[in-house]
Amino acid sequence: MRVITTKTEMRDQVRGARGSGAAAVGLVPTMGYLHEGHLSLARRARSECDLVVMSIFVNPTQFGAQEDLESYPRDLERDVAMADQAGVDVVFHPSATEMYAPGHATWVDVEGLTDHLCGASRPGHFRGVTTVVSKLFAVCEPDRAYFGGKDAQQSLVIRRMALDLDQAVEVIVCATVREPDGLAMSSRNARLTSAERAQAPAMYRALLEAEGSIGDGERDPHVIRAAVIGRLADAPSASVDYVEVVSTSDLRPVDRIDGEVLLAAAIRFGATRLIDNLLVSPPD
Amino acid sequence: MRVITTKTEMRDQVRGARGSGAAAVGLVPTMGYLHEGHLSLARRARSECDLVVMSIFVNPTQFGAQEDLESYPRDLERDVAMADQAGVDVVFHPSATEMYAPGHATWVDVEGLTDHLCGASRPGHFRGVTTVVSKLFAVCEPDRAYFGGKDAQQSLVIRRMALDLDQAVEVIVCATVREPDGLAMSSRNARLTSAERAQAPAMYRALLEAEGSIGDGERDPHVIRAAVIGRLADAPSASVDYVEVVSTSDLRPVDRIDGEVLLAAAIRFGATRLIDNLLVSPPD
Repeated sequence: MRVITTKTEMRDQVRGARGSGAAAVGLVPTMGYLHEGHLSLARRARSECDLVVMSIFVNPTQFGAQEDLESYPRDLERDVAMADQAGVDVVFHPSATEMYAPGHATWVDVEGLTDHLCGASRPGHFRGVTTVVSKLFAVCEPDRAYFGGKDAQQSLVIRRMALDLDQAVEVIVCATVREPDGLAMSSRNARLTSAERAQAPAMYRALLEAEGSIGDGERDPHVIRAAVIGRLADAPSASVDYVEVVSTSDLRPVDRIDGEVLLAAAIRFGATRLIDNLLVSPPD
Repeated sequence: MRVITTKTEMRDQVRGARGSGAAAVGLVPTMGYLHEGHLSLARRARSECDLVVMSIFVNPTQFGAQEDLESYPRDLERDVAMADQAGVDVVFHPSATEMYAPGHATWVDVEGLTDHLCGASRPGHFRGVTTVVSKLFAVCEPDRAYFGGKDAQQSLVIRRMALDLDQAVEVIVCATVREPDGLAMSSRNARLTSAERAQAPAMYRALLEAEGSIGDGERDPHVIRAAVIGRLADAPSASVDYVEVVSTSDLRPVDRIDGEVLLAAAIRFGATRLIDNLLVSPPD
């Protein structure tokens, strides 16, 4: 496995591989501090592609001024070993100055889908995500790109972007990988205290109970939302950023649960903000 | 020469040509109603590339609600014959519904460079340009793209975009082609009345005189600007949209002419808005 740090070498590597017969190039964009969720994406890419590239880049433009850019966990050596084990061919690990030219002034914006959920809580976040993912697509020229289901809004936004900008890449969203107690895997989990870690599975449990209520016939999103928030009261370190029941097409809050909805939550456990979601369809 | 109307066929054509050994693909993006300026770009592309694609697409998203989208001149049959003569291999002529998917929501924005000149006069114009050019780059996958010097701000904005988004394309800006009386060639010239057409060369003459003043030692941009506007008083159908002396790096108005500047003007002759510019360096 190679580690590449410049955009020019990265593109040359991909084009060289294509020249040598690689029919399909897969990209797994990550911010590193890998966990089983990332590795599941890499293994899926390995099974479907001739060349598997994993980018590891903590993208500064998707963090707000008050957010956790500096404290975001990093461990490149460990990541490289894990990526190698998962079958990755190339780790692309540029610096921020390599990734963004001096005077960078161009932004990719997806309107509408970014108004709600994390887009509302984290102004400018998705602009940073769509811009850096566009750049990664341009540098790595993948046929397929793999994203985790935990970041449901991100996946929808990136799919919309790829469609709208005619980016020649298939956006593949894989199931969220969870700890045995149900907590969605996230690099940020490493920053939980042991007390917070013990409480964090409450988020997924509350979403599962909400799914159960919908299965039992509840159709009022306000009741569902209140139940999730109520259930989280059991976790004293939890504070709700948002809990929403939204349409899977435009991510707007629904008035009534008539078809498939996304139950999405962002909860702070102490200083660490975690997100999770469930896709739920009411029974016919 | 082929005329292609779908994005899928267009990309297949380019990839097929590459598979058959085309090392360099050139793209000439146009809105059609071709003139000698466009053809000079096509001939330059022909001399440098193995496959030459010309797009002909009157892009609705770069026109304001009050602007001339409906009345923009069109003549595909004539354009196709002229493109063929100039050595174009493929004309890409999508419909607006082919180009923009239903629910299109993604925009490419270049900040800063678009604040002045046409960006100030035509809010949203450059967002439409950068978005459609990004899409054309993604569909046609060119190695080189050719733009006319008349649209000086557009070229700078697109170069910035290509750099910032790592688009693997060289942006080549070619000299403005002029009528014998100096008027910059433009598809919009066809909409001038004969009286307006007779007056329109005043814009270029005024810019040339300003260049002469700078050559004679004038360093005050306000004096230059006033002289250009004063000279245009000779053309009764002319009304000034803007006349500016700006930096070639950030397109901001300069306080003093110390190095190379862009003299840029947008003038309406009757209902038709025309632009022109000169790059001027004061003598040492």
